[in-house]
Amino acid sequence: MDPQKLAELRRKYADAQVFDAQTEKFQQIAKALVGDNPGGARPKPYSGISTLLDAPIQEGLADLDIALIGVPMDLAVTNRPGARLGPRAVRDVERIGPYNHASNTMPHSLARFADVGDVPFRSRYSLDDSIADIASYYRDVVAAGVLPLSVGGDHSVTYPILQALGAKEPVGLVHIDAHCDTAGIYEGSKFSHGGPFRAAVLDGVLDPERTIQIGIRGASEIIWEFSYESGMTVLHIEDVTRMGIEAVVAQARAVVGDGPVYLSVDVDGFDPAFAPGTGTPEVGGLTPREGLSLLQGLDGLNWVGADVVEVAPMYDPTSNTAQLGAQLLFEELCLLAKAVS
Amino acid sequence: MDPQKLAELRRKYADAQVFDAQTEKFQQIAKALVGDNPGGARPKPYSGISTLLDAPIQEGLADLDIALIGVPMDLAVTNRPGARLGPRAVRDVERIGPYNHASNTMPHSLARFADVGDVPFRSRYSLDDSIADIASYYRDVVAAGVLPLSVGGDHSVTYPILQALGAKEPVGLVHIDAHCDTAGIYEGSKFSHGGPFRAAVLDGVLDPERTIQIGIRGASEIIWEFSYESGMTVLHIEDVTRMGIEAVVAQARAVVGDGPVYLSVDVDGFDPAFAPGTGTPEVGGLTPREGLSLLQGLDGLNWVGADVVEVAPMYDPTSNTAQLGAQLLFEELCLLAKAVS
Amino acid sequence: MDPQKLAELRRKYADAQVFDAQTEKFQQIAKALVGDNPGGARPKPYSGISTLLDAPIQEGLADLDIALIGVPMDLAVTNRPGARLGPRAVRDVERIGPYNHASNTMPHSLARFADVGDVPFRSRYSLDDSIADIASYYRDVVAAGVLPLSVGGDHSVTYPILQALGAKEPVGLVHIDAHCDTAGIYEGSKFSHGGPFRAAVLDGVLDPERTIQIGIRGASEIIWEFSYESGMTVLHIEDVTRMGIEAVVAQARAVVGDGPVYLSVDVDGFDPAFAPGTGTPEVGGLTPREGLSLLQGLDGLNWVGADVVEVAPMYDPTSNTAQLGAQLLFEELCLLAKAVS
Amino acid sequence: MDPQKLAELRRKYADAQVFDAQTEKFQQIAKALVGDNPGGARPKPYSGISTLLDAPIQEGLADLDIALIGVPMDLAVTNRPGARLGPRAVRDVERIGPYNHASNTMPHSLARFADVGDVPFRSRYSLDDSIADIASYYRDVVAAGVLPLSVGGDHSVTYPILQALGAKEPVGLVHIDAHCDTAGIYEGSKFSHGGPFRAAVLDGVLDPERTIQIGIRGASEIIWEFSYESGMTVLHIEDVTRMGIEAVVAQARAVVGDGPVYLSVDVDGFDPAFAPGTGTPEVGGLTPREGLSLLQGLDGLNWVGADVVEVAPMYDPTSNTAQLGAQLLFEELCLLAKAVS
Amino acid sequence: MDPQKLAELRRKYADAQVFDAQTEKFQQIAKALVGDNPGGARPKPYSGISTLLDAPIQEGLADLDIALIGVPMDLAVTNRPGARLGPRAVRDVERIGPYNHASNTMPHSLARFADVGDVPFRSRYSLDDSIADIASYYRDVVAAGVLPLSVGGDHSVTYPILQALGAKEPVGLVHIDAHCDTAGIYEGSKFSHGGPFRAAVLDGVLDPERTIQIGIRGASEIIWEFSYESGMTVLHIEDVTRMGIEAVVAQARAVVGDGPVYLSVDVDGFDPAFAPGTGTPEVGGLTPREGLSLLQGLDGLNWVGADVVEVAPMYDPTSNTAQLGAQLLFEELCLLAKAVS
Amino acid sequence: MDPQKLAELRRKYADAQVFDAQTEKFQQIAKALVGDNPGGARPKPYSGISTLLDAPIQEGLADLDIALIGVPMDLAVTNRPGARLGPRAVRDVERIGPYNHASNTMPHSLARFADVGDVPFRSRYSLDDSIADIASYYRDVVAAGVLPLSVGGDHSVTYPILQALGAKEPVGLVHIDAHCDTAGIYEGSKFSHGGPFRAAVLDGVLDPERTIQIGIRGASEIIWEFSYESGMTVLHIEDVTRMGIEAVVAQARAVVGDGPVYLSVDVDGFDPAFAPGTGTPEVGGLTPREGLSLLQGLDGLNWVGADVVEVAPMYDPTSNTAQLGAQLLFEELCLLAKAVS
Repeated sequence: MDPQKLAELRRKYADAQVFDAQTEKFQQIAKALVGDNPGGARPKPYSGISTLLDAPIQEGLADLDIALIGVPMDLAVTNRPGARLGPRAVRDVERIGPYNHASNTMPHSLARFADVGDVPFRSRYSLDDSIADIASYYRDVVAAGVLPLSVGGDHSVTYPILQALGAKEPVGLVHIDAHCDTAGIYEGSKFSHGGPFRAAVLDGVLDPERTIQIGIRGASEIIWEFSYESGMTVLHIEDVTRMGIEAVVAQARAVVGDGPVYLSVDVDGFDPAFAPGTGTPEVGGLTPREGLSLLQGLDGLNWVGADVVEVAPMYDPTSNTAQLGAQLLFEELCLLAKAVS
Repeated sequence: MDPQKLAELRRKYADAQVFDAQTEKFQQIAKALVGDNPGGARPKPYSGISTLLDAPIQEGLADLDIALIGVPMDLAVTNRPGARLGPRAVRDVERIGPYNHASNTMPHSLARFADVGDVPFRSRYSLDDSIADIASYYRDVVAAGVLPLSVGGDHSVTYPILQALGAKEPVGLVHIDAHCDTAGIYEGSKFSHGGPFRAAVLDGVLDPERTIQIGIRGASEIIWEFSYESGMTVLHIEDVTRMGIEAVVAQARAVVGDGPVYLSVDVDGFDPAFAPGTGTPEVGGLTPREGLSLLQGLDGLNWVGADVVEVAPMYDPTSNTAQLGAQLLFEELCLLAKAVS
Repeated sequence: MDPQKLAELRRKYADAQVFDAQTEKFQQIAKALVGDNPGGARPKPYSGISTLLDAPIQEGLADLDIALIGVPMDLAVTNRPGARLGPRAVRDVERIGPYNHASNTMPHSLARFADVGDVPFRSRYSLDDSIADIASYYRDVVAAGVLPLSVGGDHSVTYPILQALGAKEPVGLVHIDAHCDTAGIYEGSKFSHGGPFRAAVLDGVLDPERTIQIGIRGASEIIWEFSYESGMTVLHIEDVTRMGIEAVVAQARAVVGDGPVYLSVDVDGFDPAFAPGTGTPEVGGLTPREGLSLLQGLDGLNWVGADVVEVAPMYDPTSNTAQLGAQLLFEELCLLAKAVS
Repeated sequence: MDPQKLAELRRKYADAQVFDAQTEKFQQIAKALVGDNPGGARPKPYSGISTLLDAPIQEGLADLDIALIGVPMDLAVTNRPGARLGPRAVRDVERIGPYNHASNTMPHSLARFADVGDVPFRSRYSLDDSIADIASYYRDVVAAGVLPLSVGGDHSVTYPILQALGAKEPVGLVHIDAHCDTAGIYEGSKFSHGGPFRAAVLDGVLDPERTIQIGIRGASEIIWEFSYESGMTVLHIEDVTRMGIEAVVAQARAVVGDGPVYLSVDVDGFDPAFAPGTGTPEVGGLTPREGLSLLQGLDGLNWVGADVVEVAPMYDPTSNTAQLGAQLLFEELCLLAKAVS
Repeated sequence: MDPQKLAELRRKYADAQVFDAQTEKFQQIAKALVGDNPGGARPKPYSGISTLLDAPIQEGLADLDIALIGVPMDLAVTNRPGARLGPRAVRDVERIGPYNHASNTMPHSLARFADVGDVPFRSRYSLDDSIADIASYYRDVVAAGVLPLSVGGDHSVTYPILQALGAKEPVGLVHIDAHCDTAGIYEGSKFSHGGPFRAAVLDGVLDPERTIQIGIRGASEIIWEFSYESGMTVLHIEDVTRMGIEAVVAQARAVVGDGPVYLSVDVDGFDPAFAPGTGTPEVGGLTPREGLSLLQGLDGLNWVGADVVEVAPMYDPTSNTAQLGAQLLFEELCLLAKAVS
Repeated sequence: MDPQKLAELRRKYADAQVFDAQTEKFQQIAKALVGDNPGGARPKPYSGISTLLDAPIQEGLADLDIALIGVPMDLAVTNRPGARLGPRAVRDVERIGPYNHASNTMPHSLARFADVGDVPFRSRYSLDDSIADIASYYRDVVAAGVLPLSVGGDHSVTYPILQALGAKEPVGLVHIDAHCDTAGIYEGSKFSHGGPFRAAVLDGVLDPERTIQIGIRGASEIIWEFSYESGMTVLHIEDVTRMGIEAVVAQARAVVGDGPVYLSVDVDGFDPAFAPGTGTPEVGGLTPREGLSLLQGLDGLNWVGADVVEVAPMYDPTSNTAQLGAQLLFEELCLLAKAVS
């Protein structure tokens, strides 16, 4: 290279510390991260008390735009239990964020958010009570004007969240999953993790015509009639392959429109190679590159909340599922942060 | 959504049980599954004695269209042993089937099938005897007019299966694998898992010109001369990338034509990220979405049998390989069920 | 098939041993492998003392074209340690090579190479000394006219390697990674694994304008300003998706041109599903099929050396990462072997 | 050795097959195992459909002395779920039995037993219904005059079993566990796995004064008051260390006396090094040598049933816990078989 | 049992909640745990933000008797790194404490303690700086009159802790370990994890004649001369076997006497079956029952601090090591809590 | 401590390097290890090409007292295969030796030994040929006057080793195992891993009256008649518990006497908590402390060779089994080294 250019680089960078930047763009994002102390003190990723996306710990919702909430409940699974340990597993993931290059977002600059801990449950034995406890907790979140960003728990937790969020007006939904989760009453319970979106529609809190379900596959098709009958848009995995992600994004935006919309991501929407740590895996799913592109394409919608569910760490020997869950949570945070900014 | 539509949905679905359906299409598939007892008793996936694809257990072949058969033998491996535990691992997989949305198939409605247990072997020490035992067993299956659907074991087991199936007329073959498995005599044995398809051609039970091998890669190329010389069609993984699955399907159909054809899937055809539990993994393989699409595209051929081989669960900490194996087995069951219906 | 053809096949192949070949092409590659003893003695993959790519063990560099070198040092990681065990893990991988079908290369025929062991380090406690020890070792390799093919260790080891290789003339670089690794001084050290390529540019041993970085993603973007300011070409993972590998290859060739060029592959460039065993995984990375195609496309450049870094086996329960690392190393060996032949 | 003796050995044993025996004692046990076909056909351990202790599969209880029963229910856990997969894990264990050298018992010769499958449950969501379903099932077992030998499931399953067994007369209990499991109502439920033995006493089906609890430790002591107040004998792990197993056996025999007695073994009674696969592990537990000696010492009591509970295979990467569970089940089978013979 | 006694039990316990107690002893410990709300709200073990022993989170040392401190630093290991993730792993352990039956201790009633987070480090690359950072941090702890209870990190962290604790007066030491850790300068550094206790003696902060080392074994003996020459008492594992734990306790108490004494537990003192997750395992170590008895026997000494070190979770697939580490930490908390009460 | 003593310690040790020693005893063992370069260059345990016990690599047997030999063959297993990867796994273990404190032995000072690689096998498919290949190889070892120290492979490999060692005179045997391994012809083969010691006796190369088998348990008792009938001494695990190791040592010494004696250790003699990585685990086995004490007690016998067998690393997620195997190998090396010195 040109010796003069090398000299110039040396002049500017020879003693530069890790967060020193010479250009305005990078100075801005560095400042958002470490303030005015560039050489300084970012916590080491393996150190300290673990929180969701390394957010600060806060009791209560005061002054928050977005609340990161754990929902450690898995009484509604149809197969392998364990998602009750999902929030802990996602908290333990390090090195996610703070800057999203693909969408050029720095949520720290856009919104106030914190890890407010887990939904408190009366009983670890009662699915009915647990659903009620979640609904009650999220009504408070809604009342406080805070957007909830949640980590399950099994997918049944999304139903009471939608009860709170859609109480005034039914919301739309972008739903990534291997399963439609619109089954009927399952062995006596309408709260199974196979049915939250049927229940939400029947309650009038979810608008099926503004709902899109992406990544569907596997043998459970047999119980997803309600998705079709209620007018949901169902994209099976073979549709995703055929269409490509760009077209999926376009269809999702068209389906949900401008109204309030919720984002629910079940990690089993992804192939078990990427997300083995879940209770009802289905081979042949989305790749993380598809999934992240999809979320990044949903920028600018009228988001009212989001979740990542069904991370079950005992089936996740590499922690890949928790890492993917945390990255998805960060993408959701970016979407919500823009929505509140 | 329209209040009237919501009211209608509520009327139809408010009390609907998990297998209740309101539309004929879904009623049909639900009925095939749970009979006339929609709210009722499907076995829980984590419960009961495990069988291949949760098929009923049957001793003997009476009244069967298709026999699900375990072949727990791995004396022919060139590298890491363990596929003798493959049938057990695939039996333990839950939640596969019963309905195949992608191909709109419900094999329970089309064919009578059962898990008939494992091929009995005289000796766990003699590869030669084991090959003979398999051939003998499958001659009985063929004589009974039953289509065999098998789980290996290492890939050497396919040779005696082909001996039985091709005894009257050589069969064609769709073969998914990282390796052509057409090597010569290996350290004194012609039964190594590197050579079943050469042996079958030389026996006149396999037609090389009606044989296609898909997913080939890795360093063993050095010993696959016979594939080319005998007239097999060899698609390396880079061919799959270049052509796309639709073209691969078309070529496979063209190669095998209308004659009797066998389907043999070695799980090492898939990338080790999806199928680590196997003895001779090769990085850079098929994805499950490609593989499943490929199988679904082979609908309507003149199938005489199929297998999934080389699942070795001790290298499979997430059970992903067994899950993929079971899903592949289900796709094969769908193909065979249509063939006998 | 035609009976005459079958008879002919039988005549030629009925008694053929595994490495017997009837056609010249295959005879050549078989001979390179097992000499004139076709039925004979290839070592079993699970047997013997393990070396990199099963190369012979050699002390010193005499008569070598290419030296396979372990660099077991991980004092420079920002997050999870363990890559010091990377060379051992890659040595334990079996069944890689000797023939590369995709690029039609048999490196044994083209070059003399050996596993010369690991770089000796004065101290396991001093990052500064270790960097100096590596630089010193590679100066000897360069002086001997031998091309180094290395297995890390963390990515900091590439900086002293470049110091040796670029001493006379700055080299170009093809760099596969999730991270640009062009950060500034990190907590007091300029040798962190986040900064080798900034340090190399500032030393004048690496030409940034002849450098391309492929697969970049994740949150560290915040510290990669130097890549842009120095004129490196940065392809984020979404660029790879958008362009396709063929275009990436073309751009890489255009960037590095005809001058001397180094190849550095961090396994975290790949998605954690394929390469979980690494210290700073980032979801959403390259697939092995992309990565191998990319390397195969770089045939014929003026290679001066190559490495694979950041394999950390304690996070790799399936050994997939080590297997991928070994396959990448073999692809690199093919490139270097052609370069010296 | 003496040449004549060697000649004699050769005469008798040179051609002897694996189950050939020359002495009466061994002929008897071999005959019980393989009938009159000594060279012959024992199933290979890695082959076939898996059942508890390789017992035959039987629907219903007809003609049985002892029924091996799976109870795959874990809705009552206080911490990590997963024991619903315990019966499957224990079924997959191979090579347990058929002869118990330490107690010189061959249960096949003493009793008719079979794997009768799993307790059917109405709902996977209702702990209350599940407890009722178990009670109902075991009332049938008792009515049929069959001794139940069960595999959990979490420890809550023992309460309804005792309800059935103690309906006419309260039973005594030998209870191996880290926890007394005599807690009160837990978050609204009296069916938690922390309380089965309090509930059984209060129902009058378990006699606390004929109950001994062995291996107790950990922090839950805080909730075991009822054990002391009701008159149970509690041996903490430090008591076991101090007394030695022989004295523990003597005390257990003294406590339970001659009346009907049940045996319940929670695998968390063992140290997590031996039994990691369980939901509430406590470091510092029994060793298998202690536990097996203890069970062997309880020979000849008036046994009415037995169980092994809390095997949770997702926390059991070596399958050691399932293996220990299966061995314990076999020891229990030996005790029950003697009791019915 | 006596019907009247049963009636009485029913009267008292039929409706009792989990933390209800009828006797004073249990009421006291229950009250210390859940206050006056017996039926009420103990956090679920799988829920919430994880801290050491579920202690409250506190910034700073105000009003504390004992500070639980993480020391995530592993730059001093001689072999496998990873103990930097030890504090996180121990925080994730659930269900330890609050009551110690063996020593009848309820630390919550005796002392104020909190998880104050991790020692902040200037640099993850400098062992020397890290040692200085620890020393500085603990000088503040000592100055505040707070007893430190620490989780490593590798064993090098104990040296700067002792520098702070022994500044006024050399302390005695009970040291459980496979290694004496009294080596000399190691590859240029006196801070290796093989040498903290030599360094401490030479600094005059540790009294070797009041030091006992328990569990020593393995090949490193070759470098422990200093233990003998300085007058430490060294008990090899075979001494422990021979003497029994009671005698070991007696000797430990005799050696350390009445002066201030520190307790340092390296988890590799335990056999790798119980504690595989560590960097330098040595087969043939202590059992947890021995280790816990040993600590319980050290009640009433003049404790000035304690630690558990060398937990490395990437080698700990069952989490057994972290669980053992947490239980040891709780035993240490009990000792310290009595010391400050 | 006394200030003068502290001053003296500082004078001697303040600048001492890790292998500096001030006392003669330690100087001797340090010198044997690092020569005259105390501060210097011991290889780092995670670095370099792996060999058995870090012994030098040597082709051929010239000038050796003891040859470390791998025997990677597992065609004779009755259950789970995998021990063919045992030698590799044991080679990968680091940090074993060089000094044995318990027996005060430094084998480097007493004997010349090397890792001579693995027995070459004609075929990986023929058990019969493999047994012959081993016999042939060991005849050369015996002819060279070298003591063999071997790592299996399954236990069948000990039979051909004994054929070579006992050719002139039958040897005695100390045999640690869960199984007597004296079964008859197994499914047509007399080479099963269940029968090496019957075959050796019948060949006249093993003296059953000078044979002791220690640790026997599990259900295979049914086929061990030959042990009793031939006059072997059989110590079941309950005998070991009852007698204690000291008495076991005494009995072993009495049984084998002064004649030539071989030592064979099957890792399944140990409890699966300590040695999960093996094909036929049996719960309730020896502890490493017992096993190591036992070997150390056998010092001074007339050893002619030794082995460790049945390490199967795919069942060994913590590598504990390989570590135990390596430690046992080192104890055996100490015994042999003394025997040749």
